[in-house]
Amino acid sequence: MGTSPGAEPVQAVRWTDDGLRLLDQRLLPHEERYVVCRTAEETAAAIRDMVVRGAPAIGVAAAYGAVLAVRARQAQDPARWREGFAADLDRLAAARPTAVNLFWALARMRRVAAQADDAEAPARLEAEARAIHEEDVAANRRMGELGAAFIEPGSAVLTHCNTGALATGGHGTALGVIRTAWRQGRIREVFADETRPWLQGARLTAWELVREGIPVRLIADAAAAALLAAGRVRWVVVGADRIAANGDVANKIGTYGLAVLARHHGVRFMVVAPTSTIDPGIADGGAIPIETRAADEVLTAAGRRVAPQGAGAWNPVFDVTPAGLVDVLVTERGALERPDREGIARLLG
Amino acid sequence: MGTSPGAEPVQAVRWTDDGLRLLDQRLLPHEERYVVCRTAEETAAAIRDMVVRGAPAIGVAAAYGAVLAVRARQAQDPARWREGFAADLDRLAAARPTAVNLFWALARMRRVAAQADDAEAPARLEAEARAIHEEDVAANRRMGELGAAFIEPGSAVLTHCNTGALATGGHGTALGVIRTAWRQGRIREVFADETRPWLQGARLTAWELVREGIPVRLIADAAAAALLAAGRVRWVVVGADRIAANGDVANKIGTYGLAVLARHHGVRFMVVAPTSTIDPGIADGGAIPIETRAADEVLTAAGRRVAPQGAGAWNPVFDVTPAGLVDVLVTERGALERPDREGIARLLG
Repeated sequence: MGTSPGAEPVQAVRWTDDGLRLLDQRLLPHEERYVVCRTAEETAAAIRDMVVRGAPAIGVAAAYGAVLAVRARQAQDPARWREGFAADLDRLAAARPTAVNLFWALARMRRVAAQADDAEAPARLEAEARAIHEEDVAANRRMGELGAAFIEPGSAVLTHCNTGALATGGHGTALGVIRTAWRQGRIREVFADETRPWLQGARLTAWELVREGIPVRLIADAAAAALLAAGRVRWVVVGADRIAANGDVANKIGTYGLAVLARHHGVRFMVVAPTSTIDPGIADGGAIPIETRAADEVLTAAGRRVAPQGAGAWNPVFDVTPAGLVDVLVTERGALERPDREGIARLLG
Repeated sequence: MGTSPGAEPVQAVRWTDDGLRLLDQRLLPHEERYVVCRTAEETAAAIRDMVVRGAPAIGVAAAYGAVLAVRARQAQDPARWREGFAADLDRLAAARPTAVNLFWALARMRRVAAQADDAEAPARLEAEARAIHEEDVAANRRMGELGAAFIEPGSAVLTHCNTGALATGGHGTALGVIRTAWRQGRIREVFADETRPWLQGARLTAWELVREGIPVRLIADAAAAALLAAGRVRWVVVGADRIAANGDVANKIGTYGLAVLARHHGVRFMVVAPTSTIDPGIADGGAIPIETRAADEVLTAAGRRVAPQGAGAWNPVFDVTPAGLVDVLVTERGALERPDREGIARLLG
């Protein structure tokens, strides 16, 4: 299981000679098994079925999926590959609806393809995918520094879902800030929401932190209010799947409730996301498409049915936090206190 | 599994010639198996291990446990039974710390024992336990009527944990209000928090509602904020494990967060509990002892380990909601809007 303290963060997304190698996050923490995607279709399925998840990681995986697509389409027909390639990118884009990094990465790949002639397209697209991946890791490291600077030495923090090396190209967004702050001696302890129904906190965040010897205590999601009321944490630190032009944040279901509770208790609320997560084409959070997944995710736990036959479920997997509840938005281009439309425009412009 | 719509509520606690018959709530909804407690010690273990749970049901079970105690102690020594009986009641009282109904029921049993001579004690104690049980069911029916009157026809409501026939002598507190309101045509749909870590909502509340044909949709606890923000429910209806003299409410972990979120969204918040749940000896919620259970409850789900070795957990199983967040407290003696110290004193006095 690789639980040696001080270990390097895991590489969940890796481009290899065989194809796109993904750590299967459905099996963690019990099993460290890798899946190799050799086609765009396999990549889309891996995104849809959550072999890989986390907004930035989905973007990186989709970019590599586009490289698999250009290779396969050119092998079929070196001259008339572009139509099939476009269809493959559409399939990749349809894999998940909420995280904008997916569409952002595919837009970059489309632009490069449009500018490349047939012969150079595979190499240009591969270089672009690698750049997207490397830029994501660099952005995470930069956000780690910028975000950690807000955290007072000796703090405990609360995080939600998984936003670490598993959710990104590497290092992490919110968990990247926590990693950096830990290395700087600013963090005493991490509380992590278990994050039902998929248990990303219990299965993934705890796994990443234990591997590196960072003390972590899981809580039931519903225990967060009591934790905040007890004055036990100074910051709630979360990632984002899409940020609207006005600063509203779509993120894992439960984030919005945490933001309301943090404000109620005077605990500060930090969102950490690269600018690739900002969607300037969406005016506010109300327009962000929110994915609803199968009821079965709620009716089961750890793969076992828990609810009786006949019970239904409502399973939106993201919610929207109004910008007004965000104390700091940390991006690789800078940290924005009390983000709003003007601040976001300045950051992007 | 008895899922015939319109079925009568289950009887989870039943006094029989064999002893105290309890429906084992750890096995629901998959298995309907009964445990018979023949001693006070077995009854204390059943309460501690959550074969039976829910504040009123714990009180009723403990009262019957005291009947088992007097019988066993008198069989050992008809003249000198009182010391052992007192020790048995102490053991019953030590089974769970937060729900006050346990101590309240045992105090009634102690009073009856003190006033009874040796020969009449068993019959007097049995009569008292039966009275506690019957009074609880009657209180629930009365609260059902009083609480339902607040619910506008056509409403959807959100509830937390299990407060139904399984958690009480019968009918239920918060779920009793929902049952009565459903029969009166006031409720369109029930949303139920799954209520991690023990999943009382998914396993027990959904089971009770499905059995009676009441439409129920489960949500992950962290989805409650999005549900309230969407304007989909008019009332959050919950039970209580202990209410302080000023109206502060200790209840299942997550209740406090729901109360903050309900107020934030203008959704009304109803607490339903018999006056036996009010502890006039506790000035405010800060003094209510909050049970913390084993970390394993959070580190596992549905009996399977989900978190990696090395991860810790913080598992308080109750939290405290300040009286100021409660819109209505429904008791069998009346409904109190905006409960406070004076209102509570009036109710009890």
